[in-house]
Amino acid sequence: MQRRWQRQLMGRDQIRGVGALGNRLRRLTCFDRLDEAHAFLELFAQASNQSRAAFRRRWAQASGHILRFGWYEHTGEELAFGAKLAWRNHARCLGRLYWDNLIVRDRRNVSTPEGIFADLCDHLALAQGDGRVRSVISIYPSARDNEPSSYVESPQVIQYAGYLGSDGQVTGDRRSVEFTRVVKALGWHGPHDPGPFDILPVLMRDGAGHRRLFNLPDGLVREVAIRHPEFPDLNDLGLRWYAIPLISDMILSIGGIEYPCAPFNGFYMCTEIASRNLADRTRYNLLPDVARCFGQSSYVSDVFWRDKALTELNRAMLESFEAAGVTMLDHHTATDQFMQFLSREGSAGRPVSADWAWIVPPQASASCEVFHLETTDLRTVPNFYRNRSTDGSDLRPFRGHQPRSSLRRFFERARRQMSHAGR
Amino acid sequence: MQRRWQRQLMGRDQIRGVGALGNRLRRLTCFDRLDEAHAFLELFAQASNQSRAAFRRRWAQASGHILRFGWYEHTGEELAFGAKLAWRNHARCLGRLYWDNLIVRDRRNVSTPEGIFADLCDHLALAQGDGRVRSVISIYPSARDNEPSSYVESPQVIQYAGYLGSDGQVTGDRRSVEFTRVVKALGWHGPHDPGPFDILPVLMRDGAGHRRLFNLPDGLVREVAIRHPEFPDLNDLGLRWYAIPLISDMILSIGGIEYPCAPFNGFYMCTEIASRNLADRTRYNLLPDVARCFGQSSYVSDVFWRDKALTELNRAMLESFEAAGVTMLDHHTATDQFMQFLSREGSAGRPVSADWAWIVPPQASASCEVFHLETTDLRTVPNFYRNRSTDGSDLRPFRGHQPRSSLRRFFERARRQMSHAGR
Repeated sequence: MQRRWQRQLMGRDQIRGVGALGNRLRRLTCFDRLDEAHAFLELFAQASNQSRAAFRRRWAQASGHILRFGWYEHTGEELAFGAKLAWRNHARCLGRLYWDNLIVRDRRNVSTPEGIFADLCDHLALAQGDGRVRSVISIYPSARDNEPSSYVESPQVIQYAGYLGSDGQVTGDRRSVEFTRVVKALGWHGPHDPGPFDILPVLMRDGAGHRRLFNLPDGLVREVAIRHPEFPDLNDLGLRWYAIPLISDMILSIGGIEYPCAPFNGFYMCTEIASRNLADRTRYNLLPDVARCFGQSSYVSDVFWRDKALTELNRAMLESFEAAGVTMLDHHTATDQFMQFLSREGSAGRPVSADWAWIVPPQASASCEVFHLETTDLRTVPNFYRNRSTDGSDLRPFRGHQPRSSLRRFFERARRQMSHAGR
Repeated sequence: MQRRWQRQLMGRDQIRGVGALGNRLRRLTCFDRLDEAHAFLELFAQASNQSRAAFRRRWAQASGHILRFGWYEHTGEELAFGAKLAWRNHARCLGRLYWDNLIVRDRRNVSTPEGIFADLCDHLALAQGDGRVRSVISIYPSARDNEPSSYVESPQVIQYAGYLGSDGQVTGDRRSVEFTRVVKALGWHGPHDPGPFDILPVLMRDGAGHRRLFNLPDGLVREVAIRHPEFPDLNDLGLRWYAIPLISDMILSIGGIEYPCAPFNGFYMCTEIASRNLADRTRYNLLPDVARCFGQSSYVSDVFWRDKALTELNRAMLESFEAAGVTMLDHHTATDQFMQFLSREGSAGRPVSADWAWIVPPQASASCEVFHLETTDLRTVPNFYRNRSTDGSDLRPFRGHQPRSSLRRFFERARRQMSHAGR
């Protein structure tokens, strides 16, 4: 016969989320949540030089709340610290040197789609500034069972449309074709004359799971026209890109609490746009057109036309952003910064989580030092993820080589018992 | 109380190898060897349209031999088929489209270091031909306990020396510095005037584990001088590279039998030399010198000087090999061929094993289709590996989705019992 507290601790899925979000949120048992909360609060106590007594008080309060309600509330400081850690731990990001400079906007009091959208416009204005891009995250309410969450469904707040013509040709971003179809079905009309760089509306879900569309106000989104200093033919292609990649479909997980709406931005590395977004066949597929602008009209006879066009397009990208006064890094500087990040983290005694295939630039790869690294994705929380069944699986607090506390041993024993009981 | 046959089947390490080789060979139980032999002989029977009766006879003979002596002998046809399969299964190779055209030299009757070296010179001459490089493998005796093996210790038969000067500067290939020190200690004098492209002697071990050095005969090794059609300054650098990468430190594993001496060659892809061997900081580190030849003397102000120098050096490489009439592929053609390989294997109902980080070219990566593939290394035997503790671990016959034979079920049950008994 199981006791009540055992049943409670062993229960799964206390925080389910609603509809589509429910399929993406990690499912934690009460045990897991206690374990992650403890690990996180301990990290926070260390980082903020809390006394042991203060930590014990905080832990008693948080664990009590989890046992009663299934969740607990982070203080503003804990939230800011957790968001920075999530960035520091994210294995797929190359630009983590300045993780500690992340601007954290605590917006847990804003919960309606209208409120969130209006606030995201402020986020964008703050991040863009005068062109010197700031790394910013806005955090809206955490997932709780009794209060369904609003969240952003668009992968990024700023995105270009992709229109599939009746002839099978695509105008715009091939990746957005399905998204564009959806927002059109939801009532978006788009510009009278569809072009390759039309900014899509932001798609949100309210607490009941209903979809809502919001148009970004005119003049808010900063874009950069892509020009090449030596090849004016490129200017005629009318290429442009937006200044801020504002990722909005990732769930932020801190100390056992999931924030399904926590859009964040950094700044661009030139290869992201020049070597991928504009060049990939599943995106704009512009490499042949671009090559022609660089005078490679006879490119079929030159096996390296792609290599050359990519380098020149990267150069055009970097110099156009520079001329517009908008922050952008080249891949060599970015990898140098990552090597600095590695060495700083090493000095702090912290192992670095990294996913090789994601951090190695897709251009002159072997000449970037990161190419020669052996990396591991440690799957550490706090972190960002999209879906519990893919990049959200196996996330857990980093154990390191610290001696296990008695509480940790208790958790591990309990989890073993639980998994036996679950068979 | 275990029966005798149980003890025998459960015994580990029947074939140990001597000294350094013993630390590299996979250790198989009699069970594993029977299992791999059965899977391989079944594949061979299918591929060669053997009758079931013929297969059963062959299996009875091979399994009987394994149970008595710990090994069995492949027929010439089995050996050729197995070597081709090892290539087809090797996840780190991009150039597997023509796996079936591999020329297999069955040299199991040659076992002394002198004999193997002389035969490898013939291999080289055959592979080089008139410049149209042929893919060739030479297979010397398999590892058996009572007959210690001779094998090649050099990573490649043709290698350039690396000399560490008293000032800490390296002349030649940095990767060869330790190897060069070893062969010098063993009595190699090298040329009177050490240069960056001195061909090293071949280091072998005889059956007793003693090291032997052999100098490649003058005039045997084909080399190509690297010139650029537009930048004559590059010609003054005196760059060169050998035509044939003849890999000699990998162990070939076929149907439970290990061949520790099975050097093989393909031909070069331009990025292997231009983007890696000559450019890597841990190899020739020539990128700054090369960039200067391309008129990028003010390269410090151009963030893309590496990208441009790499493209031009690749072009120089490809055109120099072409002019010399020596086979070389560019990375775009090579990835196109790999996509063809994928589709052919798919049509044949065979999944393809691939290691993303190894098959994606280090140059214009995202513009090569392989960049966008999801790949898995299936760890299938037959295969090549260097060391049981690294790339040799976890190799096993591919099971696929075929219904398990009663014999396979027997093996699996037996292995489970064995692993329980071993606890």
